[in-house]
Amino acid sequence: MKTFHIERPDEGLRPAIADKIDNLTKPKGSLGLLEETALQVALVQQTQKPTLRKPQNIIFAADHGIVAEGVSLSPKEVTWQQLSNFLHGGAGVNFLCRQHGFELKIVDAGVDYDLPYEKGIIDMKVRRGTRNYLYEAAMTQEEADLCLERGAEMTRRCHKEGSNVLSFGEMGIGNTSSSSLWMTYFTGIPLEQCVGAGSGLDQEGIRHKYEILKKCMEHYDGDGSAMDIIRYFGGLEMVMAVGAMLQAAELKMLILVDGFIMTNCLLAAMQLYPAVRDYAIFGHCGDECGHKRVLDFLHAKPLLHLGLRLGEGTGAICAYPLVESAVRMINEMDSFAHASITKYF
Amino acid sequence: MKTFHIERPDEGLRPAIADKIDNLTKPKGSLGLLEETALQVALVQQTQKPTLRKPQNIIFAADHGIVAEGVSLSPKEVTWQQLSNFLHGGAGVNFLCRQHGFELKIVDAGVDYDLPYEKGIIDMKVRRGTRNYLYEAAMTQEEADLCLERGAEMTRRCHKEGSNVLSFGEMGIGNTSSSSLWMTYFTGIPLEQCVGAGSGLDQEGIRHKYEILKKCMEHYDGDGSAMDIIRYFGGLEMVMAVGAMLQAAELKMLILVDGFIMTNCLLAAMQLYPAVRDYAIFGHCGDECGHKRVLDFLHAKPLLHLGLRLGEGTGAICAYPLVESAVRMINEMDSFAHASITKYF
Repeated sequence: MKTFHIERPDEGLRPAIADKIDNLTKPKGSLGLLEETALQVALVQQTQKPTLRKPQNIIFAADHGIVAEGVSLSPKEVTWQQLSNFLHGGAGVNFLCRQHGFELKIVDAGVDYDLPYEKGIIDMKVRRGTRNYLYEAAMTQEEADLCLERGAEMTRRCHKEGSNVLSFGEMGIGNTSSSSLWMTYFTGIPLEQCVGAGSGLDQEGIRHKYEILKKCMEHYDGDGSAMDIIRYFGGLEMVMAVGAMLQAAELKMLILVDGFIMTNCLLAAMQLYPAVRDYAIFGHCGDECGHKRVLDFLHAKPLLHLGLRLGEGTGAICAYPLVESAVRMINEMDSFAHASITKYF
Repeated sequence: MKTFHIERPDEGLRPAIADKIDNLTKPKGSLGLLEETALQVALVQQTQKPTLRKPQNIIFAADHGIVAEGVSLSPKEVTWQQLSNFLHGGAGVNFLCRQHGFELKIVDAGVDYDLPYEKGIIDMKVRRGTRNYLYEAAMTQEEADLCLERGAEMTRRCHKEGSNVLSFGEMGIGNTSSSSLWMTYFTGIPLEQCVGAGSGLDQEGIRHKYEILKKCMEHYDGDGSAMDIIRYFGGLEMVMAVGAMLQAAELKMLILVDGFIMTNCLLAAMQLYPAVRDYAIFGHCGDECGHKRVLDFLHAKPLLHLGLRLGEGTGAICAYPLVESAVRMINEMDSFAHASITKYF
C-alpha cells in the first residue's frame, strides 16, 4: 500500500501567533472564526506572515457500480455530461473558480465513458466505474493503490506549479452512497443517520437507498480494516481524493474541504493518517443529511452554512475569500501599540 | 419629520427569475442560500441579469452620553482613535474593503472630538455625542431629523457615484446599549435577552449594563411612538444609518446589513417604512448576545455565521463575495437545455 509521511505542524510558534492576533486593533476574539483560521494557516506554514498562492480546485470524476440498484435520482450519464459542462465553463464550479481565481483541473478517475482528453480532461482512469459493492468489492487493493498514487500525483503537479492551497471536488453519480458507508464505518453513527437525498431523492427513494446500503453492509466479508472499507465501498474518484489530500498534507499544503463527500474523504484519509486533519479547513456545512453529523463528529467548524449540496468543490471555493480574509487580517491589520489606540479587551 | 418614498419590488418577475434559477445545471435548490439571494437581487433590480456596481461601506461614528454610566468596557476615546485607525488603513474594515473592492466613507455623525476633516473624514456632525438617556432624551426630534437627512445625503452621494449596493457600519463606544433598547421596544423581547457583552464585558459588567438600561426604560416618559423611541435612545450614528438605509431603499439599492447594531438600525428603519426590509441582505449572525434573536425575529437568513462582533461593517463586507457569487450564478451558469445535460431533479 502506498505510504505518506505526514507530520503535525510544530506547535512552538502558537503562542507568538496567538499574541500577534490578540494585539490587532479589535476587541479580542471579535473576528471569530477568521482568527482561528489565521492561526491554523500560520501554524501550517510556520510563519507569522502566511500567504496563499495559486489556489486550484481538482475535480475527480468516476462512475459507481451501485447505481444499478437505483440508489440515485440522476442517471449515470450525468457524470460525463457534467464533465463536458465543466470543460465549457457553464457549471457551478466554473463561475466560482473564475470569481476567486482558482485554476480548475478535471480528472477522470474512472468514468464509464470515452472522454475527450485532448480538450483538457486529465486521464487518470483506473477502470470504467467501480464494481457493484452489493455483490463484490468496488475495487481491488491494487486499484485502490493506483487511485491513491494518482491522486497524490495530481497534488504534486499543483505543488510544482506553485500552489500551496487546494480544494477538491467530485463528480460521480452514486457517490453519496459510498460516502454514507464510509461515514457509518468510521464514525459509528448508525447508517440510517448517514443516508440522505443525494441529488434529490424523495423519502421513498431515501428509504430504498438505505435498504440497499444496509444489505451491502450485511454482505461485506472483508477484514474490517480502514483500508479495506475504503476500497470495498469507495468510489474511484473518492479514493483518488484521499490520496490527493494525504499528499497535500505531506507537502504542508492547505486542504479546503468541500461537502458531504469530500468531508468523508477527509474522514477516510484520517483513518490512515490522523495528522492530515491539521491541514484541513472545512469550507461549509451543506444540506445533505449526515454532513452536519460527520462535521460534528470531527469537531469541525465549517466557515459557511449556506445549504449547499452541489459538490464539485463549490462549497470549498465559496469559502476561500474567508481564508483570504484571515490571511489579510494577520498581515494587514495594525496593532494597538502601533496605532496608538487604548487597548480594550 | 423627514419622509421617504419606498416601494416594495414588483413581484411580477418572480416566476420567470425562479424558473431561470431552477434550470441552471445543478440539482434544484442545491446552491441553497445563493439561490435565494440571487432571486432577491434580481427582484430588487427588476431584471434577470442583475449587476453589482461600485460597492461602498459607510461608517457612521458618534459618541454616547450613556457611557458615563459605565455600560461599556472601552473608554469613550476609542471612538475617535479608531476613526484615525480607519483613516490610516489599519483596522478590520480596511483590509476587507481592500479585499473586496469597497470604497470606504468615514462619517462623523457626532463624535465628541475635533476630527481632521481635511484628511478625508466627512463632517456630518449633528452634536458632540448624545445626551445621557438615563436622564433625558439622547437627541431632540430636530437632531434626529438632521441625522436622517444627513444619512440619506450620504446614500444619495454614493448613488450619484454609481453605486447600487451599500454596506453600513458604525463606530461608537456605547452603541450596543442603544441597540439593545431599540431591540426590546421593537421586538417585545425582554431587555435581559437583548443585552450582551459589547466589546467584552464580563458577567458582572453585563449585569450592570442591564440594570442601567432597565432604569433608562423606567425613566422614559415619551409618547412610545417608533420615532420617539428612536430619538430618545438612539445614537447619532445609528439614526444616520437609519436614514441612509431608508434612502437606499427609496433608490432601489441593495443594503448589506452588518452586525447587532446595524441589524437593529434596520429594525428601526422598518418601524418607519416596513418595505425597507425587501432591500436588505443580512451579512452575518454575530456573537453579540441578542443578534441571533433579532435576526430570528426578522426571519432573516444571514449569509455568514463566523462569530464576528467587531462592527464597522466587517460582517457585511465579508459576506459580499457570496452576493457576488449569487449574481454570477444567475448570469454565468448554463441551463440544462443549452448544456445538453439530462435534467435531474
